Amino acid sequence: MEMLNGRELAKNIKKTITEKIKIITKTTNQNPALATVLIGENPASQIYIQSKIKACHEVGIKSYHYNLSTNATERDIINLINDLNNNSNINGILLQLPLPQHSLTNNCINTINPNKDVDGLHPLSYGRFSLLKSWEDILKSNLLVPCTPLGIMKLLQYYNIEVNKKLVLVIGRSNLVGKPIAMLMLAKNATVIMAHSKTVNLKQLTAIADIIIIAIGIPNFLSNKYSLKKGVVIIDVGINRTQHGICGDVDLDYVKTKNVAISPVPGGVGTMTITMLLENTLKAFINQNKLKFPQL
Amino acid sequence: MEMLNGRELAKNIKKTITEKIKIITKTTNQNPALATVLIGENPASQIYIQSKIKACHEVGIKSYHYNLSTNATERDIINLINDLNNNSNINGILLQLPLPQHSLTNNCINTINPNKDVDGLHPLSYGRFSLLKSWEDILKSNLLVPCTPLGIMKLLQYYNIEVNKKLVLVIGRSNLVGKPIAMLMLAKNATVIMAHSKTVNLKQLTAIADIIIIAIGIPNFLSNKYSLKKGVVIIDVGINRTQHGICGDVDLDYVKTKNVAISPVPGGVGTMTITMLLENTLKAFINQNKLKFPQL
Repeated sequence: MEMLNGRELAKNIKKTITEKIKIITKTTNQNPALATVLIGENPASQIYIQSKIKACHEVGIKSYHYNLSTNATERDIINLINDLNNNSNINGILLQLPLPQHSLTNNCINTINPNKDVDGLHPLSYGRFSLLKSWEDILKSNLLVPCTPLGIMKLLQYYNIEVNKKLVLVIGRSNLVGKPIAMLMLAKNATVIMAHSKTVNLKQLTAIADIIIIAIGIPNFLSNKYSLKKGVVIIDVGINRTQHGICGDVDLDYVKTKNVAISPVPGGVGTMTITMLLENTLKAFINQNKLKFPQL
Repeated sequence: MEMLNGRELAKNIKKTITEKIKIITKTTNQNPALATVLIGENPASQIYIQSKIKACHEVGIKSYHYNLSTNATERDIINLINDLNNNSNINGILLQLPLPQHSLTNNCINTINPNKDVDGLHPLSYGRFSLLKSWEDILKSNLLVPCTPLGIMKLLQYYNIEVNKKLVLVIGRSNLVGKPIAMLMLAKNATVIMAHSKTVNLKQLTAIADIIIIAIGIPNFLSNKYSLKKGVVIIDVGINRTQHGICGDVDLDYVKTKNVAISPVPGGVGTMTITMLLENTLKAFINQNKLKFPQL
């Protein structure tokens, strides 16, 4: 079993971002800046936000944190987002999900200026990269692509894993991971299967896939019930808190007996996600300031 | 072999649209209106535009036609679209594709106000319906969905063909058909395979699919080289002009020997496409005037 190490790549990319920001700050006298928005006091969300802020500071991105109370109304959140949209010192806006009131999620995300949408969750962001013809077009466009899917693409590239013409099985159809990674894989000429909780006969599909990306949030779901193709590459995006600690959607004890390459939990894609947030914030800064700057 | 007759359904829907527009005109003293924009003099495009204008008049939609010359610049086209965006008498804008200069397509489409994007080709339109959780949410939202994919969904519904939990193979990944129909099928709980010209081993996939939607523009592509599951439903979206007349992407002589249901060319989905354009124009009118009106 080969391990795809997200930490190593994340470290390399952070180094590059740090250097680019140094040059930018020197030449423009400005800093890329990210606004983080947290509604309520969910402890897990607080931890996530803290690591994002810490990562910003590591690479030289300024951060501004906004915390509204759990009972903030839709109007309160939208007013804050509009203020941040109009604030030219802010390049990226990150609204930490889940919101205490789930039903407000779409309206709040849709309020974020798509050019500051560093999480890539606005429908316009999704439409923009999904309708481009190729992965090269997506890279050239400097568009904001959701962080986890972007991290997966970079991880595969780093390990020279061919996507072109491969059969990719995506299990899970969330707006955060499943739907966008399917479109990115398609842009890179993969044949893509979108599977989910309503899929019948998943066993038939795992057996023929060259690459499996799983993001469903069920500990050890991909177990010996499912046969795997020899040499399959598995990207585990699940982050599940169990009494034995954090684990992914893949039963490592099972897959380690197979000839597979795997991005494990922890240490795989998760570490890439925050790094892609930094990259998106830098991208947003470059786009907003119309800087000519080498592709990220 | 069962035939899925698009003409019959299109006729029924047109009747409903006509009645709704009659009521609307009576109560609001206004007419839904569509602007058709043609660049250049491509004869096939002229014929398409003519049938769209004719269909508008049949159901009571006003139409305004704009024809710019082949050598119109990007600025010329964008200025025209902006005028139509700002014209409150126009509810829908249809830019006939292909443009004489292909490279202008994205910028021109992106200029159309998404609320008037009756072809559903704007990235925001694509993102909006793709990120909703279910087909019911899409219907309730009154969003503008691309006409051919919407027509396919209605045709399947009309013939009571179950999509939920089925394995759907989409062959072709165009922005017009392949990508949007994949997202609509996913919203209706299908497991979706997105295949295309770079797909290896398509034979393996045709053999397991419950529903095949093909839109690649190669006459008689789906032939006896490909095995089919018993009872498969095939939606042929190809419109190919050959020396023997118009034909689809499916070899009818082959599939008619199988136990399949097929939407043929001509007479299948094609007739639904224009009808969905009428429905979208009515939807755009209703949305723009904030009318409360029964779901279409």
